[in-house]
Amino acid sequence: MAKKKSKKTTTKPQVKKAPTKEDESLVTFNISKQKNFSEWFTKIVQIAELADMRYGVKGFLVYQPWSTIAIKRMFDLYEQELEEFGHNPVIFPSVIPESNFQVEADHVEGFAPEVFWISSAGSTGMLEERLALRPTSETAMYPLYSLWIRSWRDLPLKLYQSGKVWRYEGKSTRPFLRGREFIWIESHNVFTTMEEAEAQTREDMQISINVMHDRFGIPFIQFQRPEWDKFAGAVHTYAADTLMPDGRFLQLPSTHLLGDNFSKAFGINYMDDEGVSHPAYQTCYGPAISRIFGGMIAVHGDDSGLIFPFEVAPVQVVIVPILAKKQATKVKNYAEELRMLVKAMGYRVQIDASDKRPGDKYYYWEMKGVPIRLEVGRREAKEDQITIFRRDNREKTIISKTELEATIKKVGADLNESIKERAQEFFDSRLASAETLNELVEHIKSRKMVKIPWCSIDLDGENCAEEIKDQLAGAEVRGIDVQETKIPSKDEKCFICGNQAKCFVYVGKQY
Amino acid sequence: MAKKKSKKTTTKPQVKKAPTKEDESLVTFNISKQKNFSEWFTKIVQIAELADMRYGVKGFLVYQPWSTIAIKRMFDLYEQELEEFGHNPVIFPSVIPESNFQVEADHVEGFAPEVFWISSAGSTGMLEERLALRPTSETAMYPLYSLWIRSWRDLPLKLYQSGKVWRYEGKSTRPFLRGREFIWIESHNVFTTMEEAEAQTREDMQISINVMHDRFGIPFIQFQRPEWDKFAGAVHTYAADTLMPDGRFLQLPSTHLLGDNFSKAFGINYMDDEGVSHPAYQTCYGPAISRIFGGMIAVHGDDSGLIFPFEVAPVQVVIVPILAKKQATKVKNYAEELRMLVKAMGYRVQIDASDKRPGDKYYYWEMKGVPIRLEVGRREAKEDQITIFRRDNREKTIISKTELEATIKKVGADLNESIKERAQEFFDSRLASAETLNELVEHIKSRKMVKIPWCSIDLDGENCAEEIKDQLAGAEVRGIDVQETKIPSKDEKCFICGNQAKCFVYVGKQY
Repeated sequence: MAKKKSKKTTTKPQVKKAPTKEDESLVTFNISKQKNFSEWFTKIVQIAELADMRYGVKGFLVYQPWSTIAIKRMFDLYEQELEEFGHNPVIFPSVIPESNFQVEADHVEGFAPEVFWISSAGSTGMLEERLALRPTSETAMYPLYSLWIRSWRDLPLKLYQSGKVWRYEGKSTRPFLRGREFIWIESHNVFTTMEEAEAQTREDMQISINVMHDRFGIPFIQFQRPEWDKFAGAVHTYAADTLMPDGRFLQLPSTHLLGDNFSKAFGINYMDDEGVSHPAYQTCYGPAISRIFGGMIAVHGDDSGLIFPFEVAPVQVVIVPILAKKQATKVKNYAEELRMLVKAMGYRVQIDASDKRPGDKYYYWEMKGVPIRLEVGRREAKEDQITIFRRDNREKTIISKTELEATIKKVGADLNESIKERAQEFFDSRLASAETLNELVEHIKSRKMVKIPWCSIDLDGENCAEEIKDQLAGAEVRGIDVQETKIPSKDEKCFICGNQAKCFVYVGKQY
Repeated sequence: MAKKKSKKTTTKPQVKKAPTKEDESLVTFNISKQKNFSEWFTKIVQIAELADMRYGVKGFLVYQPWSTIAIKRMFDLYEQELEEFGHNPVIFPSVIPESNFQVEADHVEGFAPEVFWISSAGSTGMLEERLALRPTSETAMYPLYSLWIRSWRDLPLKLYQSGKVWRYEGKSTRPFLRGREFIWIESHNVFTTMEEAEAQTREDMQISINVMHDRFGIPFIQFQRPEWDKFAGAVHTYAADTLMPDGRFLQLPSTHLLGDNFSKAFGINYMDDEGVSHPAYQTCYGPAISRIFGGMIAVHGDDSGLIFPFEVAPVQVVIVPILAKKQATKVKNYAEELRMLVKAMGYRVQIDASDKRPGDKYYYWEMKGVPIRLEVGRREAKEDQITIFRRDNREKTIISKTELEATIKKVGADLNESIKERAQEFFDSRLASAETLNELVEHIKSRKMVKIPWCSIDLDGENCAEEIKDQLAGAEVRGIDVQETKIPSKDEKCFICGNQAKCFVYVGKQY
């Protein structure tokens, strides 16, 4: 690395038309993410061409290339990690016969209100049996599991599938964060003992950390959810919450200890080595990649637009040639030489060869969140140098061509570390704890996620949770941090019922 | 490479139970693919655990890990190739509002009999508008295209998506080859001129060659389909046919020149540089990966089971430790050392550590189609050697550990070349040409794909094609080989109507 240029000023005109396109997509982006997060999110989805909301069916999103490429990378990283932990991929049908869907009572009660139903086909009219467009795949997969599993030798069975699910949600929908069609991975696992199933939920939480935190840079707490907020049919649900820039929580992957609830309902039994049959124990885990994508861009973006982690960026390196009349060809050739070099290194790279001014190109690619920009003009071409720009801290450095590979690798890794740390700092700054109801009220007003002593996350605590919701404008009890080791002292009471507190829970408001 | 062992004998007991599993999945596979192809296919799907047919909804398949891993690799290779040619990925909704579905008249007429309809959801009952579960995505994507495309600067637009489609087919279904839910890629492209659109169909056919032939080793002819066998709404359809081991054809990807049929219906217009608006020209291309997978295993397998091309094999290298009482630990450690080595080379590798006998393991992994097997016993462990077995020609070679990386690379590439050549030879042996109707009848009886002089592939040839179908028990006119340069002489007449032949077409029977 060589001389550092002075940091670029961030003062920009509010609106700046690009010369070569007429529509609004190329104006300079400048919205305060902290102050106007909702506007920031809505606008960046549109301006960065992440998704188009005009499909005409509520909650069904059109994913444009800029989000799709990143989402494909996110699937790759998640699937690799699942496979490292011994999960194998499968593809199950997207429809579930109504009779199978109704086998597990709690499950059907939980999901029936959200199911899209297929009841006719072609010109022949009605189907013999209605088909549910799957809202989740337990009742699709477990009838087959009951055929596949015979003896303890067939266990553990650890399978996952990547695909879409559909839920007829009543709540208002938001691109990526909440929709009626979403894109996810679901893993469904079977064991001989409850202990192994419990260990799987811990493994799932480790996978969440390895991928969502370490690779995507998203901070979160993993909670054991209260009894009244479990997955339909589960013994326990563990789920990760991150915080949006406005301090509201967003639920990320959850893992469910199903015990033998489904195995009894679907007849998933195994023979032990003495020939005795037992119901198996199960878990499932469901990282919703579309929502994690939404969370990721919300967490990392800044007032100028998106910032992608280096590994998942749709374009990792953009090359902007600065063409003067003199030596334009030489600069163009140099830019192309660099593109070939960077491509051969295995990165996703693009030259911006449009006839926009360099400054407009800079703003555009910063808004799009490209981690690294290479600027090449006459001087760079002449001296085999490159000016390299890093998106998150806006630092520019001049390097020689021979340093390019090492520099891209280092700048990419540094950017990842920096945005992860910055996101974690923000997250931590939004956590608080309260010792009185008044303190809780104040913290919730200032949009924090608040730790309080609590009577119980069993069903006997549900009334207190309802009370919290009423008194605090919808604030919800999120559960016990699975890493929490402290137990309330004798003096600590539940703020609502006044009973001795048995645990600490976090309370927050939903985005 | 060192000394070659004698080729292994292929005489095997008809049925051989493996000692550690009770069910039928581990018996030795031995079915003549040429003589009993239908049985071979049905059984290999089951015994190799490619797919489970017991889902309970006709035409909906459960893809087990052994097919899913290969299919994921096939998607990767296809998507990479599309991206090399400038296509970007998108994800569109799986449902289409009925009103959009009905915009293009020919298209709706062609697809309406095959649509699954969603008309209700949750407990709230009927939806405002019925939703089609997409049978193909023209009518999902093109309304958005009409919003995205404004000027010639927005063109060409080349997008693809990978996902599922659903078609309520009346015909009998077969795993992978024909189902009501299938897995594919569809690319949808827009241009300013018809010439560019035509060029795109040629590019699509090149992509088919680059991926299906060069990477998957599948032989095929690409045809211009007759007018009566076009995609609903297309100007022309070009499609690849391969041949199954019984000489019947299987349709592989098709590419469609849509002209301005859909752009006029959906209002996809662009402004030229003088501000004048024109309808755009379109193409679409649809490689059905699930069907290509089915075709691939049918083309390459032998009487002992599957043979996967090296790149797409779910496991590329299997290691079988041969454990005697003496030095079992040393052999185990050596096998594990090799596994780590091969994994570090980037291959999918697995040790078979089960307590089956080595011979049973050999049969099992041969049936599963693993390209390369490493056998390691006492001698190999002692001398840092490996016995390497190649699935397609059953050759065994002893190599030293230092040769492993180069040998795997070479054996994998050689296997690919060999199975590609063998498949092409079989394909060519099943082609024939006929100069009289009698010759055609004889060739069709012996299950060949037959080239004949033909009156016309325009609509005026349809009656003759119907006549062929009637007289030759369902044989179909597949169209003109796009690489055909010969034109019929004056003496050559259509066998049916006796009119002067305008072209040569191929006739064959469907699998």
